Amino acid sequence: MAVRTLEESAERLLSFDELRAQLRAVGEERYHHKHPFHLLMHEGRLSREQLQAWALNRYYYQSMIPIKDAIILSRGTDPEFRRAWRKRVIDHDGDAASEGGIKRWLKLAEATGLEPDQVRAGTGILPATRFAVNEYLNIVRSRSLLEAVASSLTELFSRDLISLRMEKLRQHYPWLSGGLDYFEARLTQAPEDAHYAVNYVYENAKTRGQQELAIQALRDKCDILWAQLDALYFAYVQPGWPPPGAFRI
Amino acid sequence: MAVRTLEESAERLLSFDELRAQLRAVGEERYHHKHPFHLLMHEGRLSREQLQAWALNRYYYQSMIPIKDAIILSRGTDPEFRRAWRKRVIDHDGDAASEGGIKRWLKLAEATGLEPDQVRAGTGILPATRFAVNEYLNIVRSRSLLEAVASSLTELFSRDLISLRMEKLRQHYPWLSGGLDYFEARLTQAPEDAHYAVNYVYENAKTRGQQELAIQALRDKCDILWAQLDALYFAYVQPGWPPPGAFRI
Repeated sequence: MAVRTLEESAERLLSFDELRAQLRAVGEERYHHKHPFHLLMHEGRLSREQLQAWALNRYYYQSMIPIKDAIILSRGTDPEFRRAWRKRVIDHDGDAASEGGIKRWLKLAEATGLEPDQVRAGTGILPATRFAVNEYLNIVRSRSLLEAVASSLTELFSRDLISLRMEKLRQHYPWLSGGLDYFEARLTQAPEDAHYAVNYVYENAKTRGQQELAIQALRDKCDILWAQLDALYFAYVQPGWPPPGAFRI
Repeated sequence: MAVRTLEESAERLLSFDELRAQLRAVGEERYHHKHPFHLLMHEGRLSREQLQAWALNRYYYQSMIPIKDAIILSRGTDPEFRRAWRKRVIDHDGDAASEGGIKRWLKLAEATGLEPDQVRAGTGILPATRFAVNEYLNIVRSRSLLEAVASSLTELFSRDLISLRMEKLRQHYPWLSGGLDYFEARLTQAPEDAHYAVNYVYENAKTRGQQELAIQALRDKCDILWAQLDALYFAYVQPGWPPPGAFRI
């Protein structure tokens, strides 16, 4: 009987609150707010050069976000969905009223002392950055639209991390303070986007199996963010440790 | 005039020997024979557990090789080419006469003390391994067939590394000696495959620009191998350093 009950519970659709709680639990375990590279950053223990390496590498991630969102846009058959999702492309690429997230990230990189042209060209970024970010494109291309949308749900967690980061960057690296427009804008954009996406996932996951696939997509996205910081830490800080969930010796 | 001469030399098609020399130079700079993880391995300084982590993670690479080759096969419009290339799928997946490279790698993993089923399932592999290997699939899918073929040319360098590795594994880790069939087979397979591929690249790169794209594909493939060892080193050894060609601080 116990087995039967387990099976039933495995098949039962999660309520909105349960789904949201499970998504939040993924963030608690795997989101990169816990990564030692960020901990060092928030303690003021990174050098200007280490922040340059971060800004340079993460630019590749930033530059691929609107491409990622355009792939999702291209897969949406519902005009309502596309009208909602295209906001993200505009947020990053800009319009007449706003310079957009990519340019704002370039300003941050410039505030670290990098040349914007060098950052835009991507010279010297870690191959591991490219591989991790390209995996994000693989996921939104090759999995279901539901999973592609769910993979954006790290935005559920980003507001808290960004608030903390802005405070700590201003405190420990005051020379960076002029470059924080990117984070300022994300403080409102990310929660709006997460709100839409979490509702989309709840409404479009029709079985428990689909809900589990959505949760897994968020786990995989967290791994993509985490691996980018691992690569930075390994290349520019030290020493090493395995990421969450990996083989341990 | 000097500029003119430079431009002319940039446009001039490389001879077979020049092309081969440039490909070899890529290997000298970037192939993973120089990676500190391999150096430790060859000095007998890895533990059984570290060799387990290596065998487990590299199994993911091995398991994707015939898929990578099947993608290349699917892109070849010439039956002659496909007849030559399909050998690679058979080498890894096996046939009536041979168990194939994937099963041989499982035997190696088993010799380290891992359960073959765990290895096959991929539980606990580093996300960075998956991202790097998946990038290899991206390359053979999205670039020209010429570049896809050229990305296999790390086989130009693998015989020397495998010979050395077999000697060192037997010397330092004698308990692994029963698991070396994979490497034994590659000693003859890899040079045959490299011979075919380097000729293919020479004959099908019709401009200097195409030759440069082929050389770049090999560079990118080397980065894929290197990043896999970085991830292992960072997770299971220490401390860190940036890979060749990356931003330095």
